[in-house]
Amino acid sequence: MRITVLSGGVGGARFTRGLLAHLATVPGDHEVTVVANTGDDMWLHGVRICPDLDTLMYTLGGAVHEGQGWGRDGESTRVAQDLAGYGLGWDFFTLGDLDLATHLARTELLRRGLGLAEVTRRLAARWDLDRHAGLPQGSVRLLPATESEVETHVVTEEGTIHFEEWWVRHRAALPALGFEQVGVAQARPAPGVLEALGGCGVVMLPPSNPVVSIGTILGIPGIRDAVRATSARVVGISPIVGGAPVRGMADACLRAIGVEATASAVARHYGWRDEGGILDAWALDAVDASQARGLRGPSHHVASFDTMMVDVSATARIAQRTLTLAKESA
Amino acid sequence: MRITVLSGGVGGARFTRGLLAHLATVPGDHEVTVVANTGDDMWLHGVRICPDLDTLMYTLGGAVHEGQGWGRDGESTRVAQDLAGYGLGWDFFTLGDLDLATHLARTELLRRGLGLAEVTRRLAARWDLDRHAGLPQGSVRLLPATESEVETHVVTEEGTIHFEEWWVRHRAALPALGFEQVGVAQARPAPGVLEALGGCGVVMLPPSNPVVSIGTILGIPGIRDAVRATSARVVGISPIVGGAPVRGMADACLRAIGVEATASAVARHYGWRDEGGILDAWALDAVDASQARGLRGPSHHVASFDTMMVDVSATARIAQRTLTLAKESA
Repeated sequence: MRITVLSGGVGGARFTRGLLAHLATVPGDHEVTVVANTGDDMWLHGVRICPDLDTLMYTLGGAVHEGQGWGRDGESTRVAQDLAGYGLGWDFFTLGDLDLATHLARTELLRRGLGLAEVTRRLAARWDLDRHAGLPQGSVRLLPATESEVETHVVTEEGTIHFEEWWVRHRAALPALGFEQVGVAQARPAPGVLEALGGCGVVMLPPSNPVVSIGTILGIPGIRDAVRATSARVVGISPIVGGAPVRGMADACLRAIGVEATASAVARHYGWRDEGGILDAWALDAVDASQARGLRGPSHHVASFDTMMVDVSATARIAQRTLTLAKESA
Repeated sequence: MRITVLSGGVGGARFTRGLLAHLATVPGDHEVTVVANTGDDMWLHGVRICPDLDTLMYTLGGAVHEGQGWGRDGESTRVAQDLAGYGLGWDFFTLGDLDLATHLARTELLRRGLGLAEVTRRLAARWDLDRHAGLPQGSVRLLPATESEVETHVVTEEGTIHFEEWWVRHRAALPALGFEQVGVAQARPAPGVLEALGGCGVVMLPPSNPVVSIGTILGIPGIRDAVRATSARVVGISPIVGGAPVRGMADACLRAIGVEATASAVARHYGWRDEGGILDAWALDAVDASQARGLRGPSHHVASFDTMMVDVSATARIAQRTLTLAKESA
């Protein structure tokens, strides 16, 4: 199976881990390309930080801090504690020592003139994502949505700030009036992204933030068109369950763009492909089953089932059911 | 007293610490500007490393690892150990965690567009060099020789390599055929350097490496001329005692440029000011007292005394005797 996943950080990474676990039980060749949101990326302390790429890499490579869902297992903050002595950077954003090794490696490779896609390939090679998933070499590929530096900024009444400042410092509690993708007009999809969207059988939107994760990926010129034009089935899983995000603060992001925090409103926000949107199919949680009826149509495939990613095997089942739904929509 | 010191790393830093300790006992205002060699600087793992500036900052700020003479006290290598997992950079050059905080802070400030002199001022502010020396605010200033990126490369039969690779990896044992200052033609002295040389009473050459430390500083266009033209007394202390360097591998560097590893040969290498060189006075160790006679002349002032910097108070006495020699040469 050839699958392309458009992913944010924790939710998308956990979903993808389950997807790979499922595929490892399915005979045949599989090729999964994960296109990661890069809107949260930033330069901090002179190094390049790509939060979603790193969360994906650590999660799929078995190095993630399971409890928090991001960052490295066994992390420490020795460098950050000393850095504080210089009074620079963001005091609300602590760089872990092990995480910093990744940032330093990335920054070194970027300084050598490599693009972020190739840099990501080299970094991910260390974590051997294929082997970790129990899949043959070359089955799993991690790509940035773009190699251009496009930063998501949040418009608030107190001014416009970097997404990470709004997310980490303000815990998304400072009301957002909107989001800006700074530099997006000049951005291009990273090498391989359009090919992955055009050449796969299924495009999956995991339960990532529909605004600042998947929305940001779709905002890179050319990507939304490629999703609309693909011969693949496009299936999404609602990040909103019972009217609230399972994790993260997607409701605050949806509110900022005037979308209700419900599973069906998110589906309508993405839109059905035959109505100018991108979806062929939509999965929502069993608790939201009543919302399915209003969404369904001849070419609007909707299923409801338990979407709680409580562990890898539960997530593998969710991925399996989502793939089944995608096939049914063909 | 206004003193300008041209310094390399460990030897120059220890000497300067002794000089400041001496000055703290001398009534009156003092202004010491330390111009540091930047030829060993490099980009590694995407961060800017300035070994001599850091050794000076840590030594004068009370944070140095006394045993090794460079790096931070209480250092650890957690990031470096993880970085090795990416297989990048130099495996023979281990970045300490605490040291890395300095590199990150420096790299962040450089990325903001600040010059290395201002960056150095901000980093050094944390260590409060004045207070640590027991001198009033504004007495001690640390400057890079240049803000231009001029790298010292070593020519060997196996090719030309960065100085730090030759020094750290090969322990200077790979025969050097010569040294190159890559990019030196376009370099300019850092803001404040020429003023410090022109506006002081004494220029001191501590027992730093005369080739790749002080020689590199003098190689920045404009600096040698400023030393030659200053109304200050220029006094040096031999880094060679009894035919060998007290520390480091200056003999290998001297050999590469065809200079004998003796206290008198180093003096002749710097040259007397009235003969086209830069020295007014030269201090050598008591064990080399016999070499003094051949050096002396009406305007060639030479003294011999114990120059072993065994601790801060011994070094303060050496600095005091060197200053006395400088005054005698006036």
